[in-house]
Amino acid sequence: MYPDNASVKVSVVDRTNVLCGKSRPGHFDGVATVLIKLFNIILPTRAYFGLKDAQQVAVVDGLIKDFNYPIELIPVETVREDDGLAKSSRNVYLSEDERQQAVELSRSLEMARLAIERGERNPVELVGMMKHHIHENTSGIVDYVEIYSYPELQELVTLKGKVIIALAVKFSKARLIDNAILEAE
Amino acid sequence: MYPDNASVKVSVVDRTNVLCGKSRPGHFDGVATVLIKLFNIILPTRAYFGLKDAQQVAVVDGLIKDFNYPIELIPVETVREDDGLAKSSRNVYLSEDERQQAVELSRSLEMARLAIERGERNPVELVGMMKHHIHENTSGIVDYVEIYSYPELQELVTLKGKVIIALAVKFSKARLIDNAILEAE
Repeated sequence: MYPDNASVKVSVVDRTNVLCGKSRPGHFDGVATVLIKLFNIILPTRAYFGLKDAQQVAVVDGLIKDFNYPIELIPVETVREDDGLAKSSRNVYLSEDERQQAVELSRSLEMARLAIERGERNPVELVGMMKHHIHENTSGIVDYVEIYSYPELQELVTLKGKVIIALAVKFSKARLIDNAILEAE
Repeated sequence: MYPDNASVKVSVVDRTNVLCGKSRPGHFDGVATVLIKLFNIILPTRAYFGLKDAQQVAVVDGLIKDFNYPIELIPVETVREDDGLAKSSRNVYLSEDERQQAVELSRSLEMARLAIERGERNPVELVGMMKHHIHENTSGIVDYVEIYSYPELQELVTLKGKVIIALAVKFSKARLIDNAILEAE
């Protein structure tokens, strides 16, 4: 699959230096390379990607558009536990206390959604509110809470159009991520 | 075709820093980008490329192999005038004298082919012989005479397997290129 002497290389030069991509340099170059190979071998008409890794969905969106792949990208909603916690293989590494607290991550996203519904358009206010909520209600350490246009992942002074609100929080033995994508009109 | 905000970029990192590619940095990145788009739009089963630009054929070969395109690359032989000069839109810029001399380019390739048939395997000897022939029989200035493995375009100490012998010669108003691909077993 990966010849030693590959003469052509792919670089994802945008949508990668934010969110989890910041701490994974080169990660999406590998994702794009294997997807190009897979797309060319399979010639699919549709490609399904989970929104738990919304940045990956954004990168795949760019890949399909930039390279004119005749593929329909179908983002798949994040599957959640009954209390709202995004399902993840990492959740088993949470202590009992942390598992109780972890619900506050999706709650903070819901709070932001309600605030946007009430008219809030300032990302700094929303991020501050969410960080405060997570800090006050969990023992986790916020890695990031960020808001961008979606799927372009560009910074916004004022929320407008489709946006992503995304967070990563470190608990003692698990780093959890979650996000919400919504329209701010 | 080319959005301003493309998030994915292609780089051809091998087969490009030799022959004409040396003086055209980035040229083959553009070639690879437009071919990826074209391949994805057309979904061809075969792709025909002329061997006059043998380096381009080598780059396309790498692109198809590295990215697993289900496309058969079919190299097309260079079309020649009756005296052996490779056809080119640039040939009209040759003076009458230069047009007479230009036949010596394909003759120098034929000399190399015959020398290899007789057992010569030293690329330095072959290149020296060809440069001498062109210098003695034309007013052109040799830009390069180079020999590489084909299609990998790697340097060779001793000719073995499929090789390309390629040249570029500057006349007063036209720079001509030509090449021969052959087996040295």
